[in-house]
Amino acid sequence: MHVDVALVHYPVYNKNQEIIGSAVTNLDIHDIARAGRTFGVGTFYIVTPYQDQQKLVGEIVSHWQEGYGARYNTDRKEALASIVICDDLQSLYELAAVNGQKPLVVATSAREHAKNISFGAMRQKILGGRRVLILFGTAWGLAEQALAGVDTMLPPISGDGDYRHLSVRSAVSIVLDRLLGLREE
Amino acid sequence: MHVDVALVHYPVYNKNQEIIGSAVTNLDIHDIARAGRTFGVGTFYIVTPYQDQQKLVGEIVSHWQEGYGARYNTDRKEALASIVICDDLQSLYELAAVNGQKPLVVATSAREHAKNISFGAMRQKILGGRRVLILFGTAWGLAEQALAGVDTMLPPISGDGDYRHLSVRSAVSIVLDRLLGLREE
Repeated sequence: MHVDVALVHYPVYNKNQEIIGSAVTNLDIHDIARAGRTFGVGTFYIVTPYQDQQKLVGEIVSHWQEGYGARYNTDRKEALASIVICDDLQSLYELAAVNGQKPLVVATSAREHAKNISFGAMRQKILGGRRVLILFGTAWGLAEQALAGVDTMLPPISGDGDYRHLSVRSAVSIVLDRLLGLREE
Repeated sequence: MHVDVALVHYPVYNKNQEIIGSAVTNLDIHDIARAGRTFGVGTFYIVTPYQDQQKLVGEIVSHWQEGYGARYNTDRKEALASIVICDDLQSLYELAAVNGQKPLVVATSAREHAKNISFGAMRQKILGGRRVLILFGTAWGLAEQALAGVDTMLPPISGDGDYRHLSVRSAVSIVLDRLLGLREE
């Protein structure tokens, strides 16, 4: 089983459907790293083209890897060890490739898309040994242009209503649980 | 279907297993309200005995209900409408009761407990019309004394490893999805 996760800060939409680069959110880093560690994710990529944001992520990770945080909370240290920062989707795909072989790239969206795969079918692919990279968009979601390099989409997460405004932290947690969580007998 | 959720800030454990009251975290309020709205939760109770913390929660909710936030993001307004602040578990149970009838109180824990119920069985109870109140502890989890009024416990959430350090935001999201999420055919 090999699943990597990428949190994408550019290109994403703002609330007016304009393409922007979003700011990194401290709790995204912690929550997603912890969920990733819980469910056996390999690498947690944080994708942002901005040098100052990359520096910020580096400082946060270093606080919990080598600074006071590492002594204060070893569970957090363990979770944040999975983080790799990268510039853009191009470098993400290069980093996530093994022997030149790109993983199956899947994205999530609050909107319906033509090339959807069910959570059950994706879980089977993962259990069958397929390497998978899951992209999550920040702000109002991944821009259409980011979906060009994506092989398939997971369906939107919903209850019985049509409210689809989960935080990316919640969406990642639920997607990882659906794909990798231990199932009850 | 009627499910309420409570985020408990006292009594909870700190990392040394001492009983403390934790501080309210802004993103807990937002993430849990949004997940609750997505999955059809009725009321999202925020339980804290501290007046200053109650005031803070009131200000955040009011910003998104009546202030600038309400105009900026109506989806957020809708989610935060479900919030009710209360002092302690005693008042929580009084508020959550209907005609003097207490709901089935269930808690989550990263530890195993004797009176566990499976997610599947709890989902069936909810679908069958049983009113349910789910307690989530902040910090290092609900103190043992808080479990006295609890009818049953959900099992810990895990992947195939033994790392159990999800954020409460992630735990709430996953629990609501498991109990109330739309299942694929």
